[in-house]
Amino acid sequence: MSNIISSPTNKFIKQINLLKKRKERWKEQKFIVEGLRSVREAVTGEAQINYILYSEQLIDKIDGIELLDLCKNKKYKIYEIENKLMKYITDTENPQGIIAVVDFNIIINDVNLTNKNNFIVILDRLQDPGNMGSIIRTADAFGANTVILTKGCVDIFNPKTIRSTMGSIFHIDIAYFENNQNLFNKLKENNIKIMSTALDTDLSCYDVDFKEDFAIVIGNEASGVSKELFSISDYKINIPMQGKAESLNAAIASGILMYEASRQRRNILKNLKI
Amino acid sequence: MSNIISSPTNKFIKQINLLKKRKERWKEQKFIVEGLRSVREAVTGEAQINYILYSEQLIDKIDGIELLDLCKNKKYKIYEIENKLMKYITDTENPQGIIAVVDFNIIINDVNLTNKNNFIVILDRLQDPGNMGSIIRTADAFGANTVILTKGCVDIFNPKTIRSTMGSIFHIDIAYFENNQNLFNKLKENNIKIMSTALDTDLSCYDVDFKEDFAIVIGNEASGVSKELFSISDYKINIPMQGKAESLNAAIASGILMYEASRQRRNILKNLKI
Repeated sequence: MSNIISSPTNKFIKQINLLKKRKERWKEQKFIVEGLRSVREAVTGEAQINYILYSEQLIDKIDGIELLDLCKNKKYKIYEIENKLMKYITDTENPQGIIAVVDFNIIINDVNLTNKNNFIVILDRLQDPGNMGSIIRTADAFGANTVILTKGCVDIFNPKTIRSTMGSIFHIDIAYFENNQNLFNKLKENNIKIMSTALDTDLSCYDVDFKEDFAIVIGNEASGVSKELFSISDYKINIPMQGKAESLNAAIASGILMYEASRQRRNILKNLKI
Repeated sequence: MSNIISSPTNKFIKQINLLKKRKERWKEQKFIVEGLRSVREAVTGEAQINYILYSEQLIDKIDGIELLDLCKNKKYKIYEIENKLMKYITDTENPQGIIAVVDFNIIINDVNLTNKNNFIVILDRLQDPGNMGSIIRTADAFGANTVILTKGCVDIFNPKTIRSTMGSIFHIDIAYFENNQNLFNKLKENNIKIMSTALDTDLSCYDVDFKEDFAIVIGNEASGVSKELFSISDYKINIPMQGKAESLNAAIASGILMYEASRQRRNILKNLKI
C-alpha cells in the first residue's frame, strides 16, 4: 500500500468503469459495491470480495477508519487511490471514499431447494431498482430462502438496487431463470405452490395456507403478473382492502404477503428453533 | 375556449409557475395536479378543481379525449394552451397535455375525529416524497380516516408525492400539526392510543389491540420516530422478523402495520357494514 493509485488507466480503475455496464457485470461475474454502509454489509455478510479501493476522505471519519481496519483484518486486497479518482469512478455525488469489487453470486436457471418449509419470492419483470432492493431486504427480514428473478427484471447488480437492499443481497440466495417454463417445472417437481396476486379472486391472503412450501410472484409495477406465470399459479390471492384505493404499490403488497406468511409460520419457526 | 393560450405571461401560466414553490402553495392554498391519471383521479375523487389547462397532445389519445369530455361535463373552467407552453410549465419530461389547479384541502393544527374506530397515521418528519405518497395510498387502501403530518415532513403537495398517492390524496383527510404537544393533547382528549415502532421492545404487532382507536407513528427514514413522539407513545411495538435484515423500509413497515390493523378489525368492519 505504499503507492497511491492516481491514473485512470490503472487496471482496477478500468475494471470498475467497465463494471458499470450490466453486460460486463454478467460477463465478468462481478459487481461493484460503493459507500460505507454497503461495503460494511458486504464485509460482515457473506460477500466474496475481490479487492477494495479507498481514498483519503474515508479516513476523515471514525467509522471510515474502523471499516478500513476491519478490511485489513480480513486480509482483503486493499489499495489506496486519489480522492479525485474516487469521484471519477463512483456513482454518487458525494463519494464516501470506499468501493469494493465483489463476486457475483447468482444461481442461473436453477434454485437451491434443500430447505424445509421453502419460502420463495419470484420477481416477474420488476422494473424499479428501489422496489427490487426493498423487496430483497423485506424477503431477508421475513426469512425467505430465495429470491428468483425472471427474464426482463431490472439488473439486480445496479448500484441503486444494491443500496436499497441495505446488505440483504449478501444474506439471501438469488436465482435467475431465463425461461419461465423451466422455473415452473422446477417448482412443481418440488411440490412448491405458486401464488399470484389478483384483484378478481375471492381467496384472501388470510385464508391461504402459507405453512405449505410456496413461491409468491410479484408482478411488474405497471402490468402486474405476466399471463404465463398467472396461468400456472396454484392460488390467486388478494389482500383485503376497505378503502377507495384500487391497489397497492408492488413493494408494499409483497411486504404484506411476506409478513402474512411469516405470521402464519411463526409457530413452525418456534418449533424449529426449540 | 376559442383562443389558445400561447403567452408565458398569461395569468394561469404565471400562477402555475408560482405554485411550483412550496411557500406559494401554502400561501395560495392551491396545488398543481399533472398528467392523465392524476387529473382523472382528481376529477373522479373529491378534489375542488379551480381550472384545467390542456394542450393538443391530450386529444391525440382516446383516453385523453374521454377525460376532456368528463371535465366538460363537470363544467370546470377549461382552457387550451400551446404544446410548447405545456412543456414549459410541467414537471415531467413527456407531458401528457393536462394540468389542473386544485384547492389545497388540509386541516391545520386540528383533526376530524368524529369517526368511530379512529385509524390514524402520523408521519413524523418523513423526507421522501415517494414514501409519503405510497403511505397515503396504503392508508387509503386499509381504511385509515386521517393522515397527520408533523412539522419537518416533505411537502405533501409536491408533484412526486401527488403522483405516488395514485389519487388517494383526494380520498382521505390530511391534517398538519405545527406542534407535537398540541397533536398529543388532541389525541389524548379523544382517548386515541399512540403507537410507535421500536426495535427494543417485546410487544409485537400481533399482540397489540388495533380494535382500539389508535394512531401509528411512522418515523423519519434515517432517524426513526422523534424522541418527543416516542416518549408520549402508549405502545412501543415491533414487527417480528426471522431473517438477518435489521429493519424494514419505512413505507413497507407502515404498510404492514396498517394491514395488521385492518386484519384485526375485519370483523368490526363486517359488523358495521351489515
